[in-house]
Amino acid sequence: MLREDIQNRLDSLTKPKGSLGFLEEIAAKMAMMQGGVIPELPKKKAVYVFAADHGVVAEGVSAYPKGVTSEMVLNMLSGGAAINVLSRHVGSEVHLVDAGVDYDFEDNPNLIKLKVGHGTHNCAVEAAMTPDQAMQSIENGRTVARMAIEHGVELAAIGDMGIGNTTIATTVAAAFGYDIDSIVDIGTKISAEQLHTKAQVVRRAMDLHRPFTNPIDVLTKVGGFCFGEMAGFILEFTSHHLPLVLDGYPTTAGALIAWKLDPGITDYLFAGHKSWVKGHIVILRDMGLRPILDLDMRLGEGTGAVLSFGIIEAAVKIMREMATFEDASISTGSEQ
Amino acid sequence: MLREDIQNRLDSLTKPKGSLGFLEEIAAKMAMMQGGVIPELPKKKAVYVFAADHGVVAEGVSAYPKGVTSEMVLNMLSGGAAINVLSRHVGSEVHLVDAGVDYDFEDNPNLIKLKVGHGTHNCAVEAAMTPDQAMQSIENGRTVARMAIEHGVELAAIGDMGIGNTTIATTVAAAFGYDIDSIVDIGTKISAEQLHTKAQVVRRAMDLHRPFTNPIDVLTKVGGFCFGEMAGFILEFTSHHLPLVLDGYPTTAGALIAWKLDPGITDYLFAGHKSWVKGHIVILRDMGLRPILDLDMRLGEGTGAVLSFGIIEAAVKIMREMATFEDASISTGSEQ
Repeated sequence: MLREDIQNRLDSLTKPKGSLGFLEEIAAKMAMMQGGVIPELPKKKAVYVFAADHGVVAEGVSAYPKGVTSEMVLNMLSGGAAINVLSRHVGSEVHLVDAGVDYDFEDNPNLIKLKVGHGTHNCAVEAAMTPDQAMQSIENGRTVARMAIEHGVELAAIGDMGIGNTTIATTVAAAFGYDIDSIVDIGTKISAEQLHTKAQVVRRAMDLHRPFTNPIDVLTKVGGFCFGEMAGFILEFTSHHLPLVLDGYPTTAGALIAWKLDPGITDYLFAGHKSWVKGHIVILRDMGLRPILDLDMRLGEGTGAVLSFGIIEAAVKIMREMATFEDASISTGSEQ
Repeated sequence: MLREDIQNRLDSLTKPKGSLGFLEEIAAKMAMMQGGVIPELPKKKAVYVFAADHGVVAEGVSAYPKGVTSEMVLNMLSGGAAINVLSRHVGSEVHLVDAGVDYDFEDNPNLIKLKVGHGTHNCAVEAAMTPDQAMQSIENGRTVARMAIEHGVELAAIGDMGIGNTTIATTVAAAFGYDIDSIVDIGTKISAEQLHTKAQVVRRAMDLHRPFTNPIDVLTKVGGFCFGEMAGFILEFTSHHLPLVLDGYPTTAGALIAWKLDPGITDYLFAGHKSWVKGHIVILRDMGLRPILDLDMRLGEGTGAVLSFGIIEAAVKIMREMATFEDASISTGSEQ
């Protein structure tokens, strides 16, 4: 059995058994998905940031105006956003995906234009998109994943950018049955009153659209274009047995859609971090994903995901580079 | 006020206020200790692993025989230990310090020989060392710190290697008043019976040596040579306003000695990670240090500390490289 061989290798390394904790589990997971005892280091790393606008911002759920979505995409394209800084730090490429921003961007080598529409409708008053658009967003996400694989990416992260995205993440999770009060939280810094409004908006969307018949129905009625594209990206990328790192709450809501379509994806997923946003860990726990970092971050863009790249690589290197007790002629003691 | 200027800078960056969570606090702490708003990146990073033997292993408190201490030091000198792998990964040097191993090492450019003795006495039956040896160990640690600074190290970590070190960490903490049951835990994998023995050994040491008059008295009666040298290293390195990262339980017990001598050191300390060993977080909390990583590691050697170097550097880069709202012409929204 491969898992057993991997464990034997881990236990042969010059350290007390299990003493590298979660690093050992990460190393084992990387080895399992590659199908060999000693995992290879990913030769290319990249984060794909899916950007879109959400009609729900008309309800006053964010501290920022809608126009900030496109402004932040431009900031990322010019290298000044947090995701650029952290990606340079860990040696990762940054690719922007226009999944549905209400703005027409000029061509840019780091921008993938696969817009489903110029923002969704307000899901508190009508369906966010048509069923065709929902299917198109999944397909667009798959296209981005195929581009990534063709480009040689062997470790990917996804990030999300879009004013209103934590509200939509909450509607998606609520549509799958999560209790609203246990997941609703601030994304940007809004007042208690605005947070109450946010919860009410999610409730109105639920009252309007229930029942939900399947994941595509959820996406159609309350999702965002970026959520569909993220789900498609995850389904395609993991189907090639490649590791993919989730970021915070919105990316995890995207993963929730993919997971409901194919529960097997979690064998290839890592949770880069635990967001400060309270609904995040609730969903991760159900998916059986332990967050690598826990730094109270709530920025999005893929920042928590890329920051964990260094830890995943460290885990792989442990497996590849550490001496064994035999190599180093060390007494094994009673643990062995 | 510098702290206020630092906060204003953090809040001017293109992200929701506070959304980088603990990264922002790390950046601010680095800036504060350097005395400017925008911190510099450390030009050289190194971990100093303090190794020593502990007479208390005669009590059967570890899964490994005493000889493993010197064997592991040799493993580290030849580059095969976990600390070597992780240090290469983050671009850090590894220096070994022989604080008191019961073995005579050959000369090695990466080994600093500042042995106080060939292992301590068994603190469950007599004083671990003489008062002169305790003072000498502190002074040796200061010497190592001065060597590090002269060598150009601007970000240091400390690690510990020594069979029996978690037992001694527990005796040190107990001597400072910590409740034994709330801190005693396994280091290497021992049975419940052995863990009971370990707690009993600590109790015997307390009964034998109480009262403790001051930190040097604690070190003399129940400490280890590596604990004294770590305390000296911390006192000296932080007195130069340089950042120092603690590893797990033994290094934090070393820091406890230093902290009791000078509470001001915490302005320059980071807790690299939260060890799986339960006593660790108890002490960190009292020192007001939040761990950067939480990966259930319990290996020692400085592994959790160096792994956090990447996060500390990321925090500094956020401050140095992110665009401001003004730079990027982005709408600031109601948060500003």
